[in-house]
Amino acid sequence: MEHGFFRVITSARFCELLRLFEPVPSETLALEDCLDRILAEDILSGEDIPALDRSCMDGYAVRAADTFGASEGNPAYVELARSAAIDEVVTRHLSSGECMGIATGGSVPPGADAVIMVEHTQMLGDTTVEIRKTVTPGENVMLRGEDVGEGQVALPAGRRLRPQDVGLMAAIGRLEATVFRRPRCGIISTGDELVPVHHTPRPGQIRDVNSHTLACMARQAGAATHSMGLVPDQREALKSALARSLEENDVVFISGGSSIGTRDLTIEVLESFANGEILAHGVSISPGKPTILARVGGKPVLGLPGQVTSAQIVMLVFGLPLLVHLGGDAGAFDPARRIMRPARLGANLSSKPGREDFVRVRLEERDGELVAMPRLGKSGLLRTMLDADGLVRIEASLEGMRAGQDVDVWIF
Amino acid sequence: MEHGFFRVITSARFCELLRLFEPVPSETLALEDCLDRILAEDILSGEDIPALDRSCMDGYAVRAADTFGASEGNPAYVELARSAAIDEVVTRHLSSGECMGIATGGSVPPGADAVIMVEHTQMLGDTTVEIRKTVTPGENVMLRGEDVGEGQVALPAGRRLRPQDVGLMAAIGRLEATVFRRPRCGIISTGDELVPVHHTPRPGQIRDVNSHTLACMARQAGAATHSMGLVPDQREALKSALARSLEENDVVFISGGSSIGTRDLTIEVLESFANGEILAHGVSISPGKPTILARVGGKPVLGLPGQVTSAQIVMLVFGLPLLVHLGGDAGAFDPARRIMRPARLGANLSSKPGREDFVRVRLEERDGELVAMPRLGKSGLLRTMLDADGLVRIEASLEGMRAGQDVDVWIF
Repeated sequence: MEHGFFRVITSARFCELLRLFEPVPSETLALEDCLDRILAEDILSGEDIPALDRSCMDGYAVRAADTFGASEGNPAYVELARSAAIDEVVTRHLSSGECMGIATGGSVPPGADAVIMVEHTQMLGDTTVEIRKTVTPGENVMLRGEDVGEGQVALPAGRRLRPQDVGLMAAIGRLEATVFRRPRCGIISTGDELVPVHHTPRPGQIRDVNSHTLACMARQAGAATHSMGLVPDQREALKSALARSLEENDVVFISGGSSIGTRDLTIEVLESFANGEILAHGVSISPGKPTILARVGGKPVLGLPGQVTSAQIVMLVFGLPLLVHLGGDAGAFDPARRIMRPARLGANLSSKPGREDFVRVRLEERDGELVAMPRLGKSGLLRTMLDADGLVRIEASLEGMRAGQDVDVWIF
Repeated sequence: MEHGFFRVITSARFCELLRLFEPVPSETLALEDCLDRILAEDILSGEDIPALDRSCMDGYAVRAADTFGASEGNPAYVELARSAAIDEVVTRHLSSGECMGIATGGSVPPGADAVIMVEHTQMLGDTTVEIRKTVTPGENVMLRGEDVGEGQVALPAGRRLRPQDVGLMAAIGRLEATVFRRPRCGIISTGDELVPVHHTPRPGQIRDVNSHTLACMARQAGAATHSMGLVPDQREALKSALARSLEENDVVFISGGSSIGTRDLTIEVLESFANGEILAHGVSISPGKPTILARVGGKPVLGLPGQVTSAQIVMLVFGLPLLVHLGGDAGAFDPARRIMRPARLGANLSSKPGREDFVRVRLEERDGELVAMPRLGKSGLLRTMLDADGLVRIEASLEGMRAGQDVDVWIF
């Protein structure tokens, strides 16, 4: 086996394995609480929205034919039948040669088929309106059912609800909807050199960083996080912590357990579950190679490297898409979801063919151009992630990239 | 005055006015709760991080000079002095010709200045290690203070705290930090034709959409929202609702009050506050022209159009940057903050010179290329915002844009 440790798979294959896990169950939430969730049902409209033809403008409802040919130099004239309040539904039929004053949002009376903006008119005396522009049938009118028709699907299952989607729910009077609930995400940190953040480390010890960065990242991806804190590198302690975390959560992230010191222990513990199975151990990305994926009782367990930067990169590349996928989003692994900014690479980068590299870069503006400056450094340090704005990905087929090349920077 | 109603200003000028408002006060929060907030203090490190030189690799601590010239074909040999546990601080000085087994994260013993990866070594018997690669001084070692030095600024005031920044706080043992609190954002919807979402509208009435979309958008920008719901288009009702909302919040958004029906009323009410002042009334963007900005008792009040799409565009262009600015982020109005995707424009767009247009577009993939298809439609309908992925901005100086042009789509 490569390097005498394990057989690596590609990141594409790793994502395929992640995609096999089932989304979490759904729950029913009130209108605004559905924001950013994925719909678990089709939402049907029980009404036409708008319910009636409504005006888009302040002006006069007219029969468009009465305005044909009208212009500044050759105005048309119609008689003002009346004006209507904004919430009034006028039943009086508008005849040819008549108009009715109407406010934005007001309902268009029967017989009228267009609205002329007040700016293109002039009152002459009390009842005559001069029309200085031609309007076409339907102009400045929101048609009945134009947003959504009665019985139609207003919002389909699987859709991520943006503010405007919540707006449509409001428009059709939906007070709640069934959405996938937030994935519950357990976080375990292992490593005998680690102490909790409120401890003063003895020489040789360091504070636990991964519990906190991973929880923050998971929260940004919409998960509810439950950190178990530090667990000693001991078989029984790790097994009982993992068992408890799996019981309470939909997915568990263990950091540290994939570095050489404790990797075998994590693997051993995962395999010791009667319903446990290692799906992958090693992925051809750098940093992040020693990543572990297991399934225990149907739930995913992701073993992240203990090195702080490696753990964050693995979380970005695999952990966060997994959480979004578990939250019911079918497009979670679509690379188009990543926020990218085009830039010019500021330095040569070398890479080992067969390995996908994620290089931290800082975006700097030089002569009006955005330049991605690599921040090379040790993955056990936080510094490169602190200085960087995002990642440049070097495909596995490449031996590197040249300074001056166009790159897409994956912003984090 | 233009159109007989008001004098419009540019969006750049409007943003300058918004930028004059002071950020909200700060608060002290626990470690992970600081995520996505803006630091209101410099965070100093009381320690060197790392506290000691530490290994980045599993392997052997060596004196680099002992490996100079070593290769697969011409290995060097050193004697294994001992191995160290990961949390052990070795005090024994490493002499020339010696090495020490070390795990990732372990502290490098005095005398050693590099670590060679275990993959590039071979044990010969019990005590001799064959070295097959040259390492340079400092190689595979995280140096004391490389993340941050004692007494240095770990994170400066004004910085938005990402997961890795929270990670650095954890590393230096900071349990809490002083950050700008969430802006509190009051939302008022006016319009006599509107009813709350749980009502069944009579003919001519429609449900209140803006309260919900604006609250959702504000929450996405990190604000805490307090919706007053619907307020009748009456002077005293609007004044008392506005007074109450200003008392409880840092900023108030009123939608509807800038359309012709109630615009004068909103202006009149804002001017009737002894400490109220209209800063702008009308901005040269479309949709969104009748936007109002006032200052009442030092707090901003933004009057948004009642048309649902216009309200959302004004919120994107002015409302959300204002909230981010109030939250202490000095770069809130930087256009580089917008999430953009390059695409090819799929149709001609016309525009009135002197007016900045925001056109809703849907991104479609055609022949492997991303095409931005305009979704033209009435701004009183939700449909275009539902169908669209983002906005194309047409600069005020242009008369339009041509199909096939490269555009940057502002994703929402």
